[in-house]
Amino acid sequence: MDKLQLVKIGGNIIENPNVLRDFLKDFAALQGPKILVHGGGKEATSLAKKMNVEVALVDGRRITNAANLELITMVYAGKINKSVVAQLQSFSCNALGISGADGNAYTAKKRAVQELDYGFVGDLTKINTGFFKQILEQNICPICCAVSHDQQGQLLNTNADTIAAAIAVALSPYFEVILTYCFEKNGVLENLHDPNSVIPVIDPERYEELKTNGIIAEGMLPKLHNCFDALEKGVQEIRIGSPKIFSKNNRFTKIQK
Amino acid sequence: MDKLQLVKIGGNIIENPNVLRDFLKDFAALQGPKILVHGGGKEATSLAKKMNVEVALVDGRRITNAANLELITMVYAGKINKSVVAQLQSFSCNALGISGADGNAYTAKKRAVQELDYGFVGDLTKINTGFFKQILEQNICPICCAVSHDQQGQLLNTNADTIAAAIAVALSPYFEVILTYCFEKNGVLENLHDPNSVIPVIDPERYEELKTNGIIAEGMLPKLHNCFDALEKGVQEIRIGSPKIFSKNNRFTKIQK
Repeated sequence: MDKLQLVKIGGNIIENPNVLRDFLKDFAALQGPKILVHGGGKEATSLAKKMNVEVALVDGRRITNAANLELITMVYAGKINKSVVAQLQSFSCNALGISGADGNAYTAKKRAVQELDYGFVGDLTKINTGFFKQILEQNICPICCAVSHDQQGQLLNTNADTIAAAIAVALSPYFEVILTYCFEKNGVLENLHDPNSVIPVIDPERYEELKTNGIIAEGMLPKLHNCFDALEKGVQEIRIGSPKIFSKNNRFTKIQK
Repeated sequence: MDKLQLVKIGGNIIENPNVLRDFLKDFAALQGPKILVHGGGKEATSLAKKMNVEVALVDGRRITNAANLELITMVYAGKINKSVVAQLQSFSCNALGISGADGNAYTAKKRAVQELDYGFVGDLTKINTGFFKQILEQNICPICCAVSHDQQGQLLNTNADTIAAAIAVALSPYFEVILTYCFEKNGVLENLHDPNSVIPVIDPERYEELKTNGIIAEGMLPKLHNCFDALEKGVQEIRIGSPKIFSKNNRFTKIQK
């Protein structure tokens, strides 16, 4: 089976043009089939301010009304996605930017209203593996943004981490998938105040230990939970590191079963 | 050779949700390979106003500074493109929205500064026919927006009419291309005040006659000039009509050699 590199980058990388550029250069140089998934939260927030559109967050989750969804679509699928694609093309990586609606790549269902109405937020229902396989076979690199659709004409805001994990799982019968999450730190840290205290490997046993000792911070818990879930579902390897993870000798945290 | 329907729709269609929806339903129902190209001028202008970004027009052409280009990318490649793609998916048309950077589909060169600096405006240099052929072979329908790139990482604003004609010409060795321009009127009119005075056929002789009599309005002159140029370069047939052109018994103007 071919190796497939699936990489997710967060808003904090996208917001820093130099960091993004260096990352994209490294990403473009990766050999073999690859996919990039990007978020972009803060850019949408700053545009919302400029346009006097209210942004509501509950438990760190965006409540997506119609005006927010329009902004997200403009920023994620427009500004960020096309800027990333154009830069990758300049580094000779044949990138193709998509939302979930494009090629019907990833489909979601509007989250049901329970205690909270999340608005136009979608939970993934299906990854179109046929589309991804065909595109990858043409040596084209999909660049996926955090906008999905419901196949009824409605675009939906969907978490980028979740999209990355779901594509990784869906393609794992066809590729040895290495899923890499790039964020602002060098990996999962033993000591949040020491950027060099990267934990090299976390397996389920170590995970329990870290949780018990309170070493893993709140934001990291769902991330790691999703990582173990993806490994159970067939993803070969998961790495968490900085945008410099593909540079030489860089450290990262490997999550393994 | 297979027939290929290549359709261009303007901003005035995109701005009216009901007109757009009806058009997309008709477009989705077209059999065989097809491509849609869209502009979106007025939406970008209204967003610019909201954000206090100045829009400069000279001779009806937008002067594209960096802030304008960002807006255009958000509106054309984001909001409009993804809305069109999601709607087409709901009509069972497997649409894929692209800019020129995606799949390196269409490349342009920043217009040289002469009397006027157009800013980030690009004149097309190359259509990636291989990309379009591969995508069409997968029964995927490309939805092209008026944003191109220079392969050096720079996105550029490029006229949608020109993109449509250039793709039509580039694909004419492989398909019998029927290029359709949809705009606010039913076709080229003999009398601008009578929407039913559609001229059924314009050939070069009739074109000269209409020009001499002053019947063709200013905005239509470059459009028709480009049509004859595209016919000379291999496009099979060109039609100019309303967004209802694919409905039964609808009239249009056929441009022929």
